[in-house]
This record gives sequence, structure tokens and C-alpha cells, in this order.
Amino acid sequence: MSPVAKPLLDTIRGARQARPPLWIMRQAGRYLPEYRELRARAGSFLELCYTPALAAEVTLQPLRRFDLDAAILFSDILVIPDALGQEVRFEAGEGPRLEPITPEGLGKLRPDAVLERLAPVFETLERIRGALPPGKTLIGFCGSPWTVATYMIAGAGSTDQAAARIFALTQPQAFAALIDILVEASIAYLVRQFEAGADVVQLFESWAMNLDEQQFRDYVIAPNRKIVEGVRARIPDAAFIGFPRGAAAMLPAYAAAVRPDALGLDYGTPPDFADRALPRSLPVQGNLDPIRLLAGGPQLDLAIDGIIAAFGNRPHIFNLGHGILPQTPIANVERLVRRVKGG
Amino acid sequence: MSPVAKPLLDTIRGARQARPPLWIMRQAGRYLPEYRELRARAGSFLELCYTPALAAEVTLQPLRRFDLDAAILFSDILVIPDALGQEVRFEAGEGPRLEPITPEGLGKLRPDAVLERLAPVFETLERIRGALPPGKTLIGFCGSPWTVATYMIAGAGSTDQAAARIFALTQPQAFAALIDILVEASIAYLVRQFEAGADVVQLFESWAMNLDEQQFRDYVIAPNRKIVEGVRARIPDAAFIGFPRGAAAMLPAYAAAVRPDALGLDYGTPPDFADRALPRSLPVQGNLDPIRLLAGGPQLDLAIDGIIAAFGNRPHIFNLGHGILPQTPIANVERLVRRVKGG
Repeated sequence: MSPVAKPLLDTIRGARQARPPLWIMRQAGRYLPEYRELRARAGSFLELCYTPALAAEVTLQPLRRFDLDAAILFSDILVIPDALGQEVRFEAGEGPRLEPITPEGLGKLRPDAVLERLAPVFETLERIRGALPPGKTLIGFCGSPWTVATYMIAGAGSTDQAAARIFALTQPQAFAALIDILVEASIAYLVRQFEAGADVVQLFESWAMNLDEQQFRDYVIAPNRKIVEGVRARIPDAAFIGFPRGAAAMLPAYAAAVRPDALGLDYGTPPDFADRALPRSLPVQGNLDPIRLLAGGPQLDLAIDGIIAAFGNRPHIFNLGHGILPQTPIANVERLVRRVKGG
Repeated sequence: MSPVAKPLLDTIRGARQARPPLWIMRQAGRYLPEYRELRARAGSFLELCYTPALAAEVTLQPLRRFDLDAAILFSDILVIPDALGQEVRFEAGEGPRLEPITPEGLGKLRPDAVLERLAPVFETLERIRGALPPGKTLIGFCGSPWTVATYMIAGAGSTDQAAARIFALTQPQAFAALIDILVEASIAYLVRQFEAGADVVQLFESWAMNLDEQQFRDYVIAPNRKIVEGVRARIPDAAFIGFPRGAAAMLPAYAAAVRPDALGLDYGTPPDFADRALPRSLPVQGNLDPIRLLAGGPQLDLAIDGIIAAFGNRPHIFNLGHGILPQTPIANVERLVRRVKGG
């Protein structure tokens, strides 16, 4: 480990700080003019993800503007299906489109090819690592198996994940096989992310809502647990931030079984509920509503102060409870950083 | 009150039953061939809602097939904006479309015209009341103000209610005025529903997720509380089922402040969590995942039994945790009813 203190990584390791360290989900993104400028010059979205010089540059852009404590790899959760050989396209303004997978099509996925296809991601991490000031934490990530599977099965995002939920209940063997493929690919991918310089990785379970308790245990808890255990079998001190979005009531069960080093909270999770429900030693991350950041003004300060106060007695990383919105004014982000840093 | 026992209403009033009474959200709907047949003959969706003979017939259809304990008024939560004078259309397969409201447009809403426009709804309730067997409970409903406002502001449904959430934070005075109009219209509407024969009304807060704690208190709890208090000021024993969907962690605060007679649970709420978090005397309703009903088979029986067991020590109304899906096989509904009834 680096001899220089990294406040964000230290917080994940359990240290409380005088002021919470800070990063912002989607901090490298469309609200930044320099991102939009670079994005317009690049080819497809996936080409941008797979071009190390550009992906590293995009990753570092927000840290040049704001006093953030971490860089997060610029990539997408759907590089895994792409690397498995499923067709993935990002249509402008429409979100991702995939060739939906069928039980019969599972055999065509190529788990052995994943690390080769994702080699540019590891080079990106190495470049970021080399350019990042020593006090900054480098965050890698992947999509959790259920969330990735919802896109692979439906061929697109959806409001209720109905296609994947029907698939899981009516084709349980094919579903289990798909989840197993994703667990193994994710373990291999994350191990290489740590080897390439990631200090910590976040597991994005973006579609953890819309599941009943048993489904949550089967689709969310079990696969995420396997990933954490699988990576730690090879890298014992591998640090994880778990982020099961939209499942406040299941957070204690998730934390106890998956055993992440820190737990990301969406903005729908009441801070005092989370503080009561979770072990005091468990670091939490979050959970400002991105709409409050977009709207700005005194309500933003009030909301920031409330979150910091609610988590004052435990290790806390300040963040949004969901990704920053493209129309967010830069001045509001500056205001957020000043407020969190106590300026 | 009728001298004949109504198991579902009695449960709402706090009586435990040997087997839970049962109704199904959207039980009058597209999964029924007789509904599809009648719908094809009717004009627009709103015309169907406003034609008492047809709306009453649709309401009663599911009770002819299944041993359900309640009929629920066939209508829509968007009759309120329609009655206020906002343009509301239902496009086939696309969901509702409204002319989005602006702060300047609030003055054009006509709260005084609401009851006149909704007169056919009250006639529908009277017709259902007259035709309903005496042991069956008649449920009325309205959309809660925040949920209705999300459609009025965005002009359509949305996955994240961003338009309404931005409106609320950036135009707080106009937003408060809109909510006040909806609270008053809802009180008048529900009082007339009780007078026309409803035994109980359900407050559908379908978009209670995606709010942070303060927003939930301001947009959900406060207006629903005003509605319950406003109706009870005129009908002291008016019975309410509150249903704030997608906000498991906020259920205790909602129940304590809004004081519904029963609380509807979505399927994302773990039953044992709800049972622990809520007063033992509070009746609950729910919460089977509609996808499980659609998929059928042994997993359906297991899920039904689990829910009944979890709520075995409190008054419990069996229901889905969200509306029944159009592609649900009739045979699965028959299986559900048999299983719940202990057959």
C-alpha cells in the first residue's frame, strides 16, 4: 500500500475523517463541457471505453476541476456482455441496445475471450494510476450479475426488468447458467482491475429494486457474495463498495452476506434508517439526490449538511445517491465540493 | 354498516381471519378475455371510465370468475386532472398523455368543476353497490397528490419522475399550490365515493420511490395525511388503505403520520421486515410479486404460503404487490385463489 494517505481508501478501510471524502457517481460525464467536447471527437461510446488514452483522459477530467478524492474508471457495465460476445450498441439518446440472449444462445457466449477483449480497460487503469496524484483513490467497477443480466435478456434497459424476472422464474436453469457465467467473468475482470492499479472496486447493482425478498437473496446477494469471495480468494485485501440500488430494507442482509468494505446508499434510503440498521463499523457512501444538486441553492446546502450529520458517527464517503444528471450546472458541483470539504 | 359480515372490511377494521381475505390489484383488467371483449366495444378508455353501466360491469367481471372478497371501482387515477380541466388522453399501448402543466397554467385548473365531471363515477359506485353480494367489500380509490402531480407536470409516466422532482425543488410555490389543489379535489372526490357506497378507499401513491426522506415527508406523507384527515372530518369512520409504493424504509413514518386503517405493501417490501417495523395492530395488504403469479407452478404456492405465514399474527389482506400483468394465465389466478382460501 502507498505510504501516502488516501482519505477515501482509508475511510473504506474503516477510518473516520474530520470531513467526509468525496466522489460523484458519473463524475466523468456529460455535465462537463470538456467531456462533451472529447466525446464528440471520439467514435462510438464503446470505442471511447476501449481507447486507453481517451478513457484515461475522460477519467481525469473532473479531478482537474474539482477537489475530489477519487477517480473512477471511465467505462460501462455492459463491457462484460460485449466481451462475452453479445452484440452491444449505444444509440445516441436511446440507451444501450443488445441482441437479446435466449437459453439456446448461452452456449455462444465466450467466457474465455473476456480478458482479451477487456485488455484496453486494464491499460486505461494503468494510465490513470500513473497520472493520478498520490492522495487520490482509484476506483474500478463492474455491473453486478443480475443487473447485467437484465440488459442481456431484455436487450435494453426497462422500468421493471420484467423480461429478466420472467426469464428467471420460467427458465431457472438457463438463468442460473447465465448468472454463473457473469460471476466468473466478473471475478476475472475485477482481479485484473486490482492488478492494473485499482484501489477499490464498486459493484453496481443498479436494478436491485423490483425484486421480492427471495429473488433479492437469489439474484443479488448470492452472486455478489460469490464475486467478493472469488476476488478475495486471489487478492485477500481486495476492497469492495457494494451498491444495491433501491433496496433499503434489504441492506442489512446484503451487508451481512456479501461483506463489502463499504455500502453505497441510494437517495431513497433515509440516512437515519441506514445508520440504525447497519453495523456502526460499516462505512457508508452517499446519498444526495442528484436532483437537489441540479436545483442548487440553499436547499442543496441543507441536504448536504443533513447527510453529513446523519453519518457523523461512522466512516462516511460523501457521494450522490445516483449518477449526476447531464444538465447539472458546474457551479452547483463547485458549491457541493466546498460545502462537503467544510470551506 | 351492513349487518352481514364483510371479511375484507372487517380485516381492515382490525379483525384477524382464519384465512386472509383477498383481492387483486387491477383484477378488472386485460388478463380477462371478457374485459378485452368489452374494452374493444367501448370508445376511449376515459369514456369507459365515465359510462356507469360499462364501468360497473367491468368492475364486477372478476367476481363472477373468482371467489374474491372485494370489488374495486374501475377507474383511473388520472380522472382527477381530467376533471380539473387538464387534457388527458390514453394512447393504445403508450400509456397516458397529458398537456404538461406549467406554473402559469395552474390558474386554469377548475377545482369547482371536479365533482360535476366525476358524477358518472359516483353513479358507477351506486350501480356496483346494488349488484354486489352483501359479503363483498366495495373499494374506491384515488391517486395520491404527488403521484398525480408527476403525470400532470411531465405529461406522461416516467421512470424517475425527474420532471416533477425538478419542478418541486425549483418552483416550490407553484408546486405547493398544485398539491393543495389535488388534496382538496381528492377529499371532495373520496367523500362522494363513500356517500355513493364505497366501504373503504385506497390511496395509490404509485411513485413513492425515487424520493429522499425529506421529499417523502413533504410530497407523500403531508398530502396523504391531509386527505385522510379531511375526509374523516366529514365521515369520521372513513376507512383507508394507504399504498406508498417503493418506500419500504419509510412505511413506519407513513403509517404513524397518515394513519391509514391498513397499509398496502409492494412486493419489494420483505414481509418479515414489514412485520417487525409496523405496529402489530396495523392491518397489512399484499404483497405477492405479479411475476410469480404470471409464472405459476410450485414457486407460486411457495411464495403465497410464505406471505401468509409472515403475516399470520396480524390482520392481513392477501393481494399482489403491484397490478396483475395482462399476460397472466387465468388458471394461475384460479390457483392463487384456491391456495389463499385454503382449498
